[in-house]
Amino acid sequence: MELEELLQSIPDIDEKAENAARKRQQELTKPRGSLGKLESLSIQIAGITAQPTPRVDKKVVFVLAGDHGVATEGVSAYPPEVTAQMMLNFLHGGAAINVLARQVGAKVVIVDMGVAVDLPDHPDLVIKKIGHATHNITLEAAMTRAQAIAAILTGAELARSEITNGAQAIATGEMGIGNTTPAAAIMAALEAAPLEICVGRGTGLDEEGLKRKRNVVERALQVNQPNPKDGLDVLSKLGGFEIAGLVGVILGGASMRVPVVLDGFITCAAAMIAVTLQPRVRNFLIASHRSQEQGHQKMLEWLGLQPLFDLGLRLGEGSGAALGLFILDAACKILSEMATFSEAGVTDKDDLSHG
Amino acid sequence: MELEELLQSIPDIDEKAENAARKRQQELTKPRGSLGKLESLSIQIAGITAQPTPRVDKKVVFVLAGDHGVATEGVSAYPPEVTAQMMLNFLHGGAAINVLARQVGAKVVIVDMGVAVDLPDHPDLVIKKIGHATHNITLEAAMTRAQAIAAILTGAELARSEITNGAQAIATGEMGIGNTTPAAAIMAALEAAPLEICVGRGTGLDEEGLKRKRNVVERALQVNQPNPKDGLDVLSKLGGFEIAGLVGVILGGASMRVPVVLDGFITCAAAMIAVTLQPRVRNFLIASHRSQEQGHQKMLEWLGLQPLFDLGLRLGEGSGAALGLFILDAACKILSEMATFSEAGVTDKDDLSHG
Repeated sequence: MELEELLQSIPDIDEKAENAARKRQQELTKPRGSLGKLESLSIQIAGITAQPTPRVDKKVVFVLAGDHGVATEGVSAYPPEVTAQMMLNFLHGGAAINVLARQVGAKVVIVDMGVAVDLPDHPDLVIKKIGHATHNITLEAAMTRAQAIAAILTGAELARSEITNGAQAIATGEMGIGNTTPAAAIMAALEAAPLEICVGRGTGLDEEGLKRKRNVVERALQVNQPNPKDGLDVLSKLGGFEIAGLVGVILGGASMRVPVVLDGFITCAAAMIAVTLQPRVRNFLIASHRSQEQGHQKMLEWLGLQPLFDLGLRLGEGSGAALGLFILDAACKILSEMATFSEAGVTDKDDLSHG
Repeated sequence: MELEELLQSIPDIDEKAENAARKRQQELTKPRGSLGKLESLSIQIAGITAQPTPRVDKKVVFVLAGDHGVATEGVSAYPPEVTAQMMLNFLHGGAAINVLARQVGAKVVIVDMGVAVDLPDHPDLVIKKIGHATHNITLEAAMTRAQAIAAILTGAELARSEITNGAQAIATGEMGIGNTTPAAAIMAALEAAPLEICVGRGTGLDEEGLKRKRNVVERALQVNQPNPKDGLDVLSKLGGFEIAGLVGVILGGASMRVPVVLDGFITCAAAMIAVTLQPRVRNFLIASHRSQEQGHQKMLEWLGLQPLFDLGLRLGEGSGAALGLFILDAACKILSEMATFSEAGVTDKDDLSHG
């Protein structure tokens, strides 16, 4: 599939299924609207999937990893080798995302999109390397436009393949030491907020580190001069291989009418690129949580999304998105499994003369 | 067990287990603090249970029901017979709480504490009737002091029995048409907020109904003159049988070192009574969500609790608390199942000279 074909394949929301779900929510044995976001979410998922009572029994979390040339500029509290170390941790099941995915019953797909070193073979490791770390964005473009396209198409293919195998909801996750820097640069390039808001502390930078990181993003923007109207230009000049792959996962999910659950700052940067490439994709996005990373709220506003919860998370890996999958599942089960007033023989409010 | 004995049996938090959990959270493969409330919650549960790596595999949701004499004053959008109708819905598995409890793997215990009619026998119905609906609180006390004590001891016994059978976390839920009125009256009597804030729309009162309900609560307070220092006085004069039973469930859970998850406005009114009777019980409480019912935030502030999430719920039944059990489970699994930096061979931030 070519990129243009992928972008054109993103459908509209199915209003008929959405209306059927909305009507059913009115008939279930509870005061109308009393389940708040669980109700609106179930209606959104009906519209996404074109099914009046959708299910999200089969869930997949994608964790895409890549290294960043810009990490040598001291923009993270952790050294670059941690990306590869954490990949092994994912493969051995010891990371937060493994624990949370197990709890929500989701499969974790671990993808090397561009880790700096070659990881040892492992049956659960999907190797889709576009390169061995991106270039340093303070000096040049992160990757070529061809690499960005290749990464997007790879991500889309991964998502589409899991959906073909039954996945009913997709959660996005990532790993890449330094990757809040390209995400902040993308956010600034797409003009979601002033630079000082876009650049935050990531995994835990101190005051000096934060100053350095702001300067790095400023230089990256000056050197690369990305065109905010051209998502591919922004992505290839400032992004990362895992971010580009996530753009593809998001587009791939939407192209097959599957809800895509965003995690925090990095996955939302990928979503901003996806929406720039194809605005229709926005309807398929669900923001799981509001991250502690300072720019995240402005990203959500740019995307026009309201997060489901705020647990003070700032880990990444898809940890918040995995918890979000649970809420999607709950919303769909409420819609399909609750009894209606007439089924249960419960007197409805609207039956009463005094309203 | 006598009430005084129950109150004295509430233990202190176990600081040793709490400190052990806090230390372990620092060693897990994630930036310190990056899992936000999941981390603090796991530490709280360690202190509650006196276990450094607690589990909440076995979960129970208590749904206590009762009718209210005050319902004849037109304080609810639904007629009183809906209490009994919804009890049958719970027993047939068609209500929101059934769906959500199934999803989180929790047992639902359905208790008739004081429904106006006698419900048909059902293997899953626990009949612990203290009376057939309370008295109308605008005219007299809801119940006698002896009834309030009996209801508390009944609720405590229910909780303690489930814990003896293995329950590791308890969620509180309720059903009772009209019961936001006694809950608001309790809140006002315990001086958590001015009357206009305490009284909200419940299941969906219109403007006129809201005015009527405020007037009803005002009259209930004037007629009964509850003593805010005496939890039993407030409870018996203004409460409901399900609210009194919930006070007991809360005390019973705390007495056996089990975390008690609160739902919305009604269960928090019960928690306010429990804390008035024994301030130590506060440490064992976890607020699942912030309800749409307008007074709930002030109740949470009075209790000194921060809710885990806000999904715009205002249903009751324990629906938010059931979702909260999932978060407790996630928090405990993160604490016990994640690998440490040294186990996973991941470089920790503190190993680095530049911090």
